[in-house]
Amino acid sequence: MSEHVVITVDAVGGDLGSGPMLEGTLLALEADPDLEVILCGPAEVVEPFAANHDRVRAQVTTQAIEMGEHPAHAVRRKKDSSIVVGCRLVKEGQAQGFFSPGSTGACLAAATLVMGRIKGVSRPAMATILPSPVKPVVMCDVGANADCKPAYLVQFAQMASIYAEKVIGIESPTCALLNIGEEEAKGSQFAQETHALMKEQLPNFIGNCEGRDLLDCKADVVVTDGFTGNVSLKTIEGVASVLFDSLKKIMKSSPAAMLGALAMKKGLAELKDLTSADTYGGAPMLGVKGACLVGHGSSNATAVKNGILMTAKCVRLDVSGLIAQAVKKPAADE
Amino acid sequence: MSEHVVITVDAVGGDLGSGPMLEGTLLALEADPDLEVILCGPAEVVEPFAANHDRVRAQVTTQAIEMGEHPAHAVRRKKDSSIVVGCRLVKEGQAQGFFSPGSTGACLAAATLVMGRIKGVSRPAMATILPSPVKPVVMCDVGANADCKPAYLVQFAQMASIYAEKVIGIESPTCALLNIGEEEAKGSQFAQETHALMKEQLPNFIGNCEGRDLLDCKADVVVTDGFTGNVSLKTIEGVASVLFDSLKKIMKSSPAAMLGALAMKKGLAELKDLTSADTYGGAPMLGVKGACLVGHGSSNATAVKNGILMTAKCVRLDVSGLIAQAVKKPAADE
Repeated sequence: MSEHVVITVDAVGGDLGSGPMLEGTLLALEADPDLEVILCGPAEVVEPFAANHDRVRAQVTTQAIEMGEHPAHAVRRKKDSSIVVGCRLVKEGQAQGFFSPGSTGACLAAATLVMGRIKGVSRPAMATILPSPVKPVVMCDVGANADCKPAYLVQFAQMASIYAEKVIGIESPTCALLNIGEEEAKGSQFAQETHALMKEQLPNFIGNCEGRDLLDCKADVVVTDGFTGNVSLKTIEGVASVLFDSLKKIMKSSPAAMLGALAMKKGLAELKDLTSADTYGGAPMLGVKGACLVGHGSSNATAVKNGILMTAKCVRLDVSGLIAQAVKKPAADE
Repeated sequence: MSEHVVITVDAVGGDLGSGPMLEGTLLALEADPDLEVILCGPAEVVEPFAANHDRVRAQVTTQAIEMGEHPAHAVRRKKDSSIVVGCRLVKEGQAQGFFSPGSTGACLAAATLVMGRIKGVSRPAMATILPSPVKPVVMCDVGANADCKPAYLVQFAQMASIYAEKVIGIESPTCALLNIGEEEAKGSQFAQETHALMKEQLPNFIGNCEGRDLLDCKADVVVTDGFTGNVSLKTIEGVASVLFDSLKKIMKSSPAAMLGALAMKKGLAELKDLTSADTYGGAPMLGVKGACLVGHGSSNATAVKNGILMTAKCVRLDVSGLIAQAVKKPAADE
């Protein structure tokens, strides 16, 4: 952790305003003495903060990309938005990584268009660690590419396996294809073709997994197209949220239940942490030149801290360089 | 509930053997005095049971379709299997509906090939009520058609809306498309085309919904292709199972927690029921000539009872006839 790293941070992308971004930045700087942050955002937010804190520089931006905007259009038009500027400073070598809790689509577009795609990578993809209380499972793609070809998923597996091994620390990670049955011949035409290609090209491929396996998966890396990945990731989040809400009601239903809840408080808080997106702080965009992590829109200070530290970790472990080495073959459709 | 109905029941399809099937049949007969059951299975299972119980006939079958077999091949080859015979008796008019906890794929194949598709229906599809503690949401397709065209999903919405209104009792059900964003232009090419077609053709269409909405959805019916539907349904089941397991551990972690768990016992049991597939007993195959419900492989006696009663309900409410009326236009690809 000793290498000096500069991370650009989008100070205004989150749903909760700049408060958690600034607080999270401070927490990250405290935790990592070799970290420097360039805060991108409006002058009134970033300048006073940079003036009052060491290892923080202000990069004033004058535009903002809203949640509803068409990502690629917004990135092309709003060159002075915090997201585009954050990525540009990485491209120019002033920083090595970018963290934002902002519009996922805009971050993906900016990372691809501004930082640029690694040579040989067909499609950059978004990975995430699934919020499981059982074990860490990396899923990729979780939303960058709604339409995919089988060859893309082979690369998603390669890129996510590097992330799982280097950043998460899973030794010799195995990978599986998300499908609707365990047998090779199951699934859509696309899933069957992808299975055949993964089997042929990936030594660490161990077959299909199903939706019910995601949180307790025999594989360390699960690959899928960005449509299915996004639906299943959000399904996990939705189910956990509904169940925790129901549980809360049960716990408030009687004085005895309330006392009981008190006795379980620590365990439940741990479970909630493990099923929360905040623990890891962000989803990495794999396949672009530089580190780029996107947090939840509702990231709190802890999530922001974890996201910034994770971005720095990706830089120090040279995830992009390792992906560039792994993806030697010509890309599927260039 | 007064109309006399005959249901064929697959006595041997479940993972737990014939025990829950026979017990569940008895419970269903007790609950519904106008119900008659034809039990399909090996002589040693069905004959003694039929001899000892009123309103039960035995239909001896000599073959069994195993879980791993290719569904359509198995259905064509094993003409004397409980699944094929159960569907054939409906086709011949000896019964009006079929219930099985057996191989979903084989049941789908048998219902389509043996009972036959309703004229005008492009693809029969499987619907299910999502295991939500908040409200009933019908999802379709959950696995019958891994590869779909946009027009199929329009029919899935029509068929599932009939099921939601008549069988589940939801007044004027609304429907949504499962997608990866709320906006019209979001999602894969397929999702965008489907959205446009649904908007044009379905008066009860209210737009996209996302994975995180499934258990607490603004729409009553959610349509998707069978691949995405199957992945998300199994994801819901998997997340609920992992969270309940984690909760169980927390509740056993200390004497105080155990006491607390006792105080919440009733609420937790209700929550578990609501998030269990057993409550509704089975997933209807919509678009075939006759009622066909498929239960979970691990259906217990209660699930079997509910599945048989639900099948009888589909018969009495003439779901197939209503679907035939609704699907007047020529099918998309005939």
